[in-house]
Amino acid sequence: MSDLASPETVQVFTTGGTIDKEYFDAKSAYEVGEPQIGTLLREAGVAFPFHVEALMRKDSLELTDADRDLIADRILATPHQRVIVTHGTDTMAETARVVAAALVAAEAAKTVVFVGSLAPARFKATDAEFNVGFAAAAAQTLPPGAYVAMNGRVFDPHHVRKDRNLNRFEPVSSPS
Amino acid sequence: MSDLASPETVQVFTTGGTIDKEYFDAKSAYEVGEPQIGTLLREAGVAFPFHVEALMRKDSLELTDADRDLIADRILATPHQRVIVTHGTDTMAETARVVAAALVAAEAAKTVVFVGSLAPARFKATDAEFNVGFAAAAAQTLPPGAYVAMNGRVFDPHHVRKDRNLNRFEPVSSPS
Amino acid sequence: MSDLASPETVQVFTTGGTIDKEYFDAKSAYEVGEPQIGTLLREAGVAFPFHVEALMRKDSLELTDADRDLIADRILATPHQRVIVTHGTDTMAETARVVAAALVAAEAAKTVVFVGSLAPARFKATDAEFNVGFAAAAAQTLPPGAYVAMNGRVFDPHHVRKDRNLNRFEPVSSPS
Amino acid sequence: MSDLASPETVQVFTTGGTIDKEYFDAKSAYEVGEPQIGTLLREAGVAFPFHVEALMRKDSLELTDADRDLIADRILATPHQRVIVTHGTDTMAETARVVAAALVAAEAAKTVVFVGSLAPARFKATDAEFNVGFAAAAAQTLPPGAYVAMNGRVFDPHHVRKDRNLNRFEPVSSPS
Repeated sequence: MSDLASPETVQVFTTGGTIDKEYFDAKSAYEVGEPQIGTLLREAGVAFPFHVEALMRKDSLELTDADRDLIADRILATPHQRVIVTHGTDTMAETARVVAAALVAAEAAKTVVFVGSLAPARFKATDAEFNVGFAAAAAQTLPPGAYVAMNGRVFDPHHVRKDRNLNRFEPVSSPS
Repeated sequence: MSDLASPETVQVFTTGGTIDKEYFDAKSAYEVGEPQIGTLLREAGVAFPFHVEALMRKDSLELTDADRDLIADRILATPHQRVIVTHGTDTMAETARVVAAALVAAEAAKTVVFVGSLAPARFKATDAEFNVGFAAAAAQTLPPGAYVAMNGRVFDPHHVRKDRNLNRFEPVSSPS
Repeated sequence: MSDLASPETVQVFTTGGTIDKEYFDAKSAYEVGEPQIGTLLREAGVAFPFHVEALMRKDSLELTDADRDLIADRILATPHQRVIVTHGTDTMAETARVVAAALVAAEAAKTVVFVGSLAPARFKATDAEFNVGFAAAAAQTLPPGAYVAMNGRVFDPHHVRKDRNLNRFEPVSSPS
Repeated sequence: MSDLASPETVQVFTTGGTIDKEYFDAKSAYEVGEPQIGTLLREAGVAFPFHVEALMRKDSLELTDADRDLIADRILATPHQRVIVTHGTDTMAETARVVAAALVAAEAAKTVVFVGSLAPARFKATDAEFNVGFAAAAAQTLPPGAYVAMNGRVFDPHHVRKDRNLNRFEPVSSPS
């Protein structure tokens, strides 16, 4: 756990996903819009320093291997140890596994927490604020490693899957 | 940290405070209303089991020593190791110190996280969802002890105070 | 204007449109969901009687001539004089003109107010509550005829168009 | 009804009341805060011109005869014919009757709509947006006179009272 008195800077990378979905009436379509997490953190009045950097704006089903390598590279390159990545839910665990492997390969002692939401942050009924709060604590308290933080739980990315019918994350015993 | 695959039950005790403030137009007055945290946890779709028990409905400035002893007793008596207490912000640290001492005296290995909000959960602009998410992660990831979880940070209750002018929690080096 | 002391029943017909848009994460797609106006009216605490009947759930660009005839027929068939129709914004004026003609042809002394919203009612930032309130007053106070009630204004459906770039309704001098 | 194509300017006067109630954690108290109606109108995207002027910030139970005279004077003095007054609910009808008498005495052909809300506009669950939308339509469509617009209804201020137990406005047959 980081020093309680002097909070470390949290590096936030955004990649898109439902949390950032906006509705464009002119097109009658939802699309990934401006990253919401910076606004959420400011409105929550957080007293730890954070930097937000947008890496891409994609549904997670559209993320490529190159995108995942970029995400891992940027995490390794940042000087900060505590990292939150906002990400679409469908392939969040997959990206987290790529990052987990990269952290091991680079012997990087970083805590990386992946989070998103099942309903857009712009909705009245959304898990976005809760999830970002959850991720903010997880990023500051967990030991180094890559984690999926969804539905109020911390998951090892090798032992979690999104149940698309129930629309929630569930643990799986065998690595996915 | 608790087993990632099998989340422990989180025991939630509510005591009142701003997070539960309701506005009663008939009286043109605010009062502590129904506890909001159960609704917040359900609406966030959390996948860990939790129990909510209301202990009292008070502004934290009205809490007595007897109230604090009751809170500590109920925490010691619950079979669950992971506990969240919703509490008014003005004397949150004081109650957390009473609980910290009780945990030590009883050699109880419980993680107890105190949380509240600076704006009522019923407001559009509120830190309640974020804070409850933050506390949910803190309660599941921190080692045994009593903590104040506010403004996106985990504080030792002996080294924190609420700055009433800034309306936020700040670390203090000497025990308060 | 209806008798101030004894409000008439307002008949509400829903046809879909942005106001009812829901986001389905499982499909990463929006769709027209449950009609929202009944909930909005109840949550606003309205003290006039109203009936809500869902006629269809469509984007207004998908509405056919047969749909418009059905809407007009149902308006003529209801015993109530004061009618609100929730409708997508893109072809709202077109449907209102069909209804206006039907009212004239049937010599029906009904006040029919078309309303929708530019952002879904499920969004935090939405014009839905305001617009439904506006339509509720317009339906109770305007003389017989068909109207488009959007952007805080009452428009003759023959002299209004939706500016898709500005995403708002504008008056036009020549009939559209 | 005003010309549909060229909307008149709506003059808005604010006097306080529940609609503008803010919660001040530092004092653990609700108080009348910044007027909310300008923000509500802008967020609703209204396409009619309006001016907002704050006259006072009071619970309506604290309004004096001098306050009511001031409100009436300002309404008579404004060059605009269409006026909305935001007002606390407890004595809204009383102020509206003072204004009704002033309009008659001055032979002023103005439409003045009194509106407020039973829950603060800052709450998630509030009638504020609906009521402001309702008032915006009422102010543009009603003939000259003073009206109370609450609970989705237009009331003659001489035949309405607030039922404090039900927390809603009800018609009364005999002048109150």
